[in-house]
Amino acid sequence: MRPIYAPNPSCELCSSDGGELVWQNDNLRVIMVDDPHFAGFVRVVWQAHVSEMTDLQPAQRSQLMQTVCLVETVMRQVLQPTKINLASLGNMTPHLHWHVIPRFANDINFPTPIWALTKEQAAQTARPCVSPEQRDALVTALRIALWA
Amino acid sequence: MRPIYAPNPSCELCSSDGGELVWQNDNLRVIMVDDPHFAGFVRVVWQAHVSEMTDLQPAQRSQLMQTVCLVETVMRQVLQPTKINLASLGNMTPHLHWHVIPRFANDINFPTPIWALTKEQAAQTARPCVSPEQRDALVTALRIALWA
Repeated sequence: MRPIYAPNPSCELCSSDGGELVWQNDNLRVIMVDDPHFAGFVRVVWQAHVSEMTDLQPAQRSQLMQTVCLVETVMRQVLQPTKINLASLGNMTPHLHWHVIPRFANDINFPTPIWALTKEQAAQTARPCVSPEQRDALVTALRIALWA
Repeated sequence: MRPIYAPNPSCELCSSDGGELVWQNDNLRVIMVDDPHFAGFVRVVWQAHVSEMTDLQPAQRSQLMQTVCLVETVMRQVLQPTKINLASLGNMTPHLHWHVIPRFANDINFPTPIWALTKEQAAQTARPCVSPEQRDALVTALRIALWA
């Protein structure tokens, strides 16, 4: 029997969307991350407060990864990034969520992972590789693909 | 029709296993990563030279994530880490591979991602949270689970 996961009042992903909500269903939601260096950054968040992929049932894991891959597909179509970076980390917020990050050869710290951004780099003026118009086009394309 | 992916002679994951081989089949392999700070670090590598998850067919993606989740399950059982970190990055080696990293509250840079390790931290004497005996137990448990 599936355990019931109560919202954790101290968890920011239980108490808020965590970004601009693009789409959601009962199990998961897709949000835009507000990051000046990585304007096309998307997160796929499991609605219930669980920590790890293997806390989900296999069919739930599959549903989550299918959504991650749909986001990746749309992101590649709209933004044509050099590389997609996928990650489920959650060391500070242990509420299952996937980072889907479009990387570009001229982004602020390619080819290192975005988490290797130094303080000096982070202090630079934002150098977004995704324009506001491209970001809006991504949101629109995601809404169309996810609501389908 | 599925395209044929030829090995890329300049790709280190085409020309070598990339670590101690734990198990493989025609489509993927599981290797131990030789990292003094993260002794239980495992990679799941797609055998063919493809770049992104969405370069695979849906059934292939599912097979790959099922293996990643099996590694995660065994890792949690054997090592009881504070958190599992999963990532597919590949900015430097664009050959599809998943990092499966056991994180511990007292590892060298928890709770930041391992890629945020500073030069000062990296220069420190290794402070592994996984003993050689635990690492060997993980390899044995993975072999049993994967060959099953």
